[in-house]
Amino acid sequence: MNCELPPLLVEEAVRAALAEDLGRAGDVTTQATIPANARACAAIVARDSGVVAGLAAARAAFALSDPEILFEAQTNDGARVEPGSLIAHVSGPARAILSAERVALNFLGRLSGIATLTARYVSAVAGTSARICDTRKTTPLLRALEKYAVRCGGGVNHRFGLDDAVLIKDNHIAVAGGVIPALRAAKANIGHLVKVEIEVDTLDQLREVLDEGADAVLLDNMTLDDLRRAVALVGGRMICEASGGVTLSNVAEIAKTGVNLISVGALTHSAPAFDVGLDMEIN
Amino acid sequence: MNCELPPLLVEEAVRAALAEDLGRAGDVTTQATIPANARACAAIVARDSGVVAGLAAARAAFALSDPEILFEAQTNDGARVEPGSLIAHVSGPARAILSAERVALNFLGRLSGIATLTARYVSAVAGTSARICDTRKTTPLLRALEKYAVRCGGGVNHRFGLDDAVLIKDNHIAVAGGVIPALRAAKANIGHLVKVEIEVDTLDQLREVLDEGADAVLLDNMTLDDLRRAVALVGGRMICEASGGVTLSNVAEIAKTGVNLISVGALTHSAPAFDVGLDMEIN
Amino acid sequence: MNCELPPLLVEEAVRAALAEDLGRAGDVTTQATIPANARACAAIVARDSGVVAGLAAARAAFALSDPEILFEAQTNDGARVEPGSLIAHVSGPARAILSAERVALNFLGRLSGIATLTARYVSAVAGTSARICDTRKTTPLLRALEKYAVRCGGGVNHRFGLDDAVLIKDNHIAVAGGVIPALRAAKANIGHLVKVEIEVDTLDQLREVLDEGADAVLLDNMTLDDLRRAVALVGGRMICEASGGVTLSNVAEIAKTGVNLISVGALTHSAPAFDVGLDMEIN
Amino acid sequence: MNCELPPLLVEEAVRAALAEDLGRAGDVTTQATIPANARACAAIVARDSGVVAGLAAARAAFALSDPEILFEAQTNDGARVEPGSLIAHVSGPARAILSAERVALNFLGRLSGIATLTARYVSAVAGTSARICDTRKTTPLLRALEKYAVRCGGGVNHRFGLDDAVLIKDNHIAVAGGVIPALRAAKANIGHLVKVEIEVDTLDQLREVLDEGADAVLLDNMTLDDLRRAVALVGGRMICEASGGVTLSNVAEIAKTGVNLISVGALTHSAPAFDVGLDMEIN
Amino acid sequence: MNCELPPLLVEEAVRAALAEDLGRAGDVTTQATIPANARACAAIVARDSGVVAGLAAARAAFALSDPEILFEAQTNDGARVEPGSLIAHVSGPARAILSAERVALNFLGRLSGIATLTARYVSAVAGTSARICDTRKTTPLLRALEKYAVRCGGGVNHRFGLDDAVLIKDNHIAVAGGVIPALRAAKANIGHLVKVEIEVDTLDQLREVLDEGADAVLLDNMTLDDLRRAVALVGGRMICEASGGVTLSNVAEIAKTGVNLISVGALTHSAPAFDVGLDMEIN
Amino acid sequence: MNCELPPLLVEEAVRAALAEDLGRAGDVTTQATIPANARACAAIVARDSGVVAGLAAARAAFALSDPEILFEAQTNDGARVEPGSLIAHVSGPARAILSAERVALNFLGRLSGIATLTARYVSAVAGTSARICDTRKTTPLLRALEKYAVRCGGGVNHRFGLDDAVLIKDNHIAVAGGVIPALRAAKANIGHLVKVEIEVDTLDQLREVLDEGADAVLLDNMTLDDLRRAVALVGGRMICEASGGVTLSNVAEIAKTGVNLISVGALTHSAPAFDVGLDMEIN
Repeated sequence: MNCELPPLLVEEAVRAALAEDLGRAGDVTTQATIPANARACAAIVARDSGVVAGLAAARAAFALSDPEILFEAQTNDGARVEPGSLIAHVSGPARAILSAERVALNFLGRLSGIATLTARYVSAVAGTSARICDTRKTTPLLRALEKYAVRCGGGVNHRFGLDDAVLIKDNHIAVAGGVIPALRAAKANIGHLVKVEIEVDTLDQLREVLDEGADAVLLDNMTLDDLRRAVALVGGRMICEASGGVTLSNVAEIAKTGVNLISVGALTHSAPAFDVGLDMEIN
Repeated sequence: MNCELPPLLVEEAVRAALAEDLGRAGDVTTQATIPANARACAAIVARDSGVVAGLAAARAAFALSDPEILFEAQTNDGARVEPGSLIAHVSGPARAILSAERVALNFLGRLSGIATLTARYVSAVAGTSARICDTRKTTPLLRALEKYAVRCGGGVNHRFGLDDAVLIKDNHIAVAGGVIPALRAAKANIGHLVKVEIEVDTLDQLREVLDEGADAVLLDNMTLDDLRRAVALVGGRMICEASGGVTLSNVAEIAKTGVNLISVGALTHSAPAFDVGLDMEIN
Repeated sequence: MNCELPPLLVEEAVRAALAEDLGRAGDVTTQATIPANARACAAIVARDSGVVAGLAAARAAFALSDPEILFEAQTNDGARVEPGSLIAHVSGPARAILSAERVALNFLGRLSGIATLTARYVSAVAGTSARICDTRKTTPLLRALEKYAVRCGGGVNHRFGLDDAVLIKDNHIAVAGGVIPALRAAKANIGHLVKVEIEVDTLDQLREVLDEGADAVLLDNMTLDDLRRAVALVGGRMICEASGGVTLSNVAEIAKTGVNLISVGALTHSAPAFDVGLDMEIN
Repeated sequence: MNCELPPLLVEEAVRAALAEDLGRAGDVTTQATIPANARACAAIVARDSGVVAGLAAARAAFALSDPEILFEAQTNDGARVEPGSLIAHVSGPARAILSAERVALNFLGRLSGIATLTARYVSAVAGTSARICDTRKTTPLLRALEKYAVRCGGGVNHRFGLDDAVLIKDNHIAVAGGVIPALRAAKANIGHLVKVEIEVDTLDQLREVLDEGADAVLLDNMTLDDLRRAVALVGGRMICEASGGVTLSNVAEIAKTGVNLISVGALTHSAPAFDVGLDMEIN
Repeated sequence: MNCELPPLLVEEAVRAALAEDLGRAGDVTTQATIPANARACAAIVARDSGVVAGLAAARAAFALSDPEILFEAQTNDGARVEPGSLIAHVSGPARAILSAERVALNFLGRLSGIATLTARYVSAVAGTSARICDTRKTTPLLRALEKYAVRCGGGVNHRFGLDDAVLIKDNHIAVAGGVIPALRAAKANIGHLVKVEIEVDTLDQLREVLDEGADAVLLDNMTLDDLRRAVALVGGRMICEASGGVTLSNVAEIAKTGVNLISVGALTHSAPAFDVGLDMEIN
Repeated sequence: MNCELPPLLVEEAVRAALAEDLGRAGDVTTQATIPANARACAAIVARDSGVVAGLAAARAAFALSDPEILFEAQTNDGARVEPGSLIAHVSGPARAILSAERVALNFLGRLSGIATLTARYVSAVAGTSARICDTRKTTPLLRALEKYAVRCGGGVNHRFGLDDAVLIKDNHIAVAGGVIPALRAAKANIGHLVKVEIEVDTLDQLREVLDEGADAVLLDNMTLDDLRRAVALVGGRMICEASGGVTLSNVAEIAKTGVNLISVGALTHSAPAFDVGLDMEIN
């Protein structure tokens, strides 16, 4: 996987998460029970099988807790791990390691959970030409990190926000007075590097879109038959994205209709956390 | 449910989430396709059955998008809804409603998802004296909101951070040189309104804790038999919390051991989003 | 002009600008010389001819200074004004009006300056099919506002940042090992709503791009003859953008080569401020 | 030039500008086309003749992008450069250099543009005792940096904000009921280290000011004859500042009237960017 | 008293203080014990005699807690109150009033404490021409508010920060190589609205300053005799500020030496809080 | 003393305090009078006897001013110093040392002042079992730092905010309808690690509390006799905290009544600053 998160972005999120956890008084348990000069080593270990994402956030959590901590990743974002796999090795001041542990694991667990679920969808459509794609149904404030985790799992990203592409939905069509006026208004008002996608619910709407032209079409909640017909109608002139009611059980069938993309809100809004733990070894 | 979120906290999180979604250029689709003076009504509707949480965040998303939008909640946080239940009614400038929709639904979906999963656990232990409790395994930056959602679902909150109670875990015990020195160090160093909980893995450790005294004990990954023995040993002198490997299938059995609390990380780290949609009606 | 700035974005920038001007002690002159209960009316007046942009920022400056101030715009962003034209009328507490004046005028002057310069370029290419386009050479921290001003002047926006489209420049081509590998790497790694533009310096490079395919091509610093040949070679298969050395004197000639876009860094990095003043009338 | 910007201030502005450019997804072009381990050298080169300002901001842009980047300035802020002059040399990870390039150049271009324009005014009044001075007509959020650039160009700074000196303008005089009451109110209300300047439009007003006393007088939009008479009237008892309608063509004549300061809003609100580029050399 | 705090500044500080007090979970006591619909009236009452400062901060604390709260000030900043004096009346939702109480009183208590101590110093020098002045020894993050409180108590403000005036201290003189080179360097490098003050420890140093010229001189830790001699030497040509070891017992004697200003760090760094309470009346 | 402040928290506060002091233009005096390459050594020295607190903040002030500065603490937070004691040694670039001096000393002076006053109270109750405790009457925005200073002085901390424990005050009791309903509501609504304290004004109220049960009782403004009776009534079943009208003169008598805690608002709201200075030695 080629694509990294901007470090500035990671650091800002991790700093805020540490502040949220430390509160006003800091880690009172550790301060009360661990000597200031105690040192420790710890292993960050997978407790399940899946795909890792978020090593930079984990590294930042320890570094911001104490720059003396040495964080040695033993794998890469996007790599598959099994229960017991060593993900990273951490060593340094015991207090700082213990105080940063939960924040580091929360990022790793959430992002690896997204990468892992994405990888399951990606694997389910292997052998087809369909790619698995996320949505804007992300956790507030963590969109860039969660979309990065989707990439780690082999998925591709849809829009990052309301401003980086046009996606005309049913409500826009209704207010604008139909597919044609909505598409024309969009194309007249946007920059030359902004693509236009439009949602259609029926094949009739799709025909209108084909007449007017767009970069991509979102085929929403269509039957497998209609998806096949839509792909045939489009004939490669636009990217075809299927969405709505996608599950691990039906995604392969959807992929076989020939759509280019299948978008799955669950990748980010409902991925269970990946189970990852920190096992300390006392120096 | 009696307990509200501080509005300052909600507003800050929602403002940041709107900024994340709007990016630098704002909602280019809506701006391009919806006339500036168009007005709309919309219904926020449950698509599944569950427990609502996050109405204040949804309200804030629309209010910050345009103070002219009227948001009329049709239910309360903590209320149960069924597929098709009307959650809120929204009316006002169409552009602003469309631009805030995803942020409002993302908060509602995530928080209601947590409340709904919590309610399932709470329901599973009905008739016992055990209460369902969250952990610090929350989404970075959203802890206060997610813990509020747990309360909406009938659960109770564990610590909000590292600073509001002492929780001595296995790693602290190891570095401190055992249960007794760890407990003594903790009690010597904390304020009179700070409670002390300690994790034990065996009944022998539990006996040490009983000798030294603590407010609560975390019985980690114990068998049902050991949990029962532990409860008997404690005899009401401390709060008994069970944790580790709790699922909807086994939580009732755990509750019947007589523990006071069962903490479930999944409430916040793995709750699937609650399905909620916005159906627009054009004025 | 159809496209508005997100109010959240405007408010944040204006709030920061007021804080910058007020410093720690606030407006000591006004506090010392103007009675707290004095009220005033003022006219915001154009001192030159041009195109207005930034009314929302001016309105916000007065509203954040004192919500009691009444700001009545007398024109719209994108409208042409002449020396003496009334842009807005302001009335309310005299102290708050005086304290916000400079910040309001600084936003209006800068943004209207950009809109005005853009309009001059747009007017110079009237009758051709070329559109005038901005760059990322904007003032740090004000990109969204400055690009909005370009739209007010009739221009169109290029990328808003490094993340909303791919623009492969000469340096990328050099490191990637040529046009073909750079283009292929880009197309393999991006989302389906991200467009790809590539810079070429020669017609030979352009032919490579045509073989491989891209959404747009940036024809950098080409002679008028080469631009014409490039447009002919492309034959409508890609958007052609001309850049480099564009001035008000040569932009019409460039437009006549048939390119679709002409990008002008000066729109944002060198536009002189539009001259606008606030004339107070004492109540 | 003796005076530096506080590094905290520079870093904060540069960090915000990088975040603005990177957006949510980061530099997608560079990530897609440049290998993670590629290294590069680059020269920052003047494309025009002028005065450099902003090296600290450029350095910070690269350092915040990746601390491994080595930035070696080849000149100093305030130094004159010619087309082709090497301003700085940059080496390190290619991705980080490319991602920070635009932000670094935007700061250098804007600040050097201001320094260069200031230097032209300063040069135009050489041989007189007049100094060139800026105003508060700066770019919102960049006042400290822009005023620093004025100093780099040989100019001097007027007020940094509303709070660090008293400047009584025509509107204040009108509301306060005249020059005398305004001056008296000001002097009665301010600290002993705050100076008082007052604007006058006529020689009669100037005589009133002389009666009452002030630290400086702003002679606004006066004819050359009146400026000369004003300087004679003042006779060295106050600093005389000329303002209004100052251009490179008339500034020498204004300077010869004997005024001490000539303030020029254009230094910051209308300085064209200085042309500076980054030429990469692939390692 | 004529001078107000910028409301933007007050609101930002109060918002941060509320967030500090509410933490992650909000006011758990009030939420648990007070019904959501309970309303209340409360009186903010002086428990001691002194001078009020900070009404705007108290008002903001209640308004930010709940905009429905009605805050009716019964006195003004700068007014003298006696034990039992009604300072303000507050009415509205009981929960919001209780949750904001401590923050409101903390601001009122600290700022009124500063105003009260200042007023005692001001009163002690009544009948002389000396004014009482603060220093930069303020509470971190509250400088503008604390300096405002000094004005409320009848004092005047020294510098607000390192940037709004030159104050050459003994250490500067030592490094610069003496009074003369330090003064010359300062005067050569600063703007025309920046005043210069210099610290002297001996009458010999003072003579050097008189030769070179400055706006003000800080007579540090001098005996009463030396202060008198210094005032005579200066003869009105500079402002004379006495500092060092000033107490309520000796300030009158110092004032009688004829100095213009007496600066007292204790005004802000050691003022005891003014005792103020909130007495609730249940509706 | 075992308990440290979270470094993230210290750094954020110190960074904000430096920004407050530097303003927009930075340290104009130092820039004007001290050569850029001058280096210096300085001693931070106690001018009074007391207890040190805030070394981490002082260190951060110099490090953020210039990372090249070497800060060598010569004592520890919580240590007693006498007039002339060396607290720290600082060496490095002279400009950066001078620019950070006031912020460093402001933190050290305020926090050491609190530690010193706390230590006097702690010393006054030596030989009794009473501990000295702070309140929420802290300086807005500095609560965590001030409560840390109380610990440095040998005191213990009460609540850090409204959210980390329940403290039912007279107003809550009044609205809730009495001690019993208030206590029951609280206990029914809080987490298992949250303690409950309740204020009582009379022995009758205390008896009600004893019937219902609580973790601690706040005996407010009681006579010494009533305190003794209260302690006897409680008989060790709850923590007894005395508050109201506590001074250095009467605290020993209060302690002898047998209460466990004596809370003193003055520790944080009225502690005079500890006198600490920086003596430079020029290199």
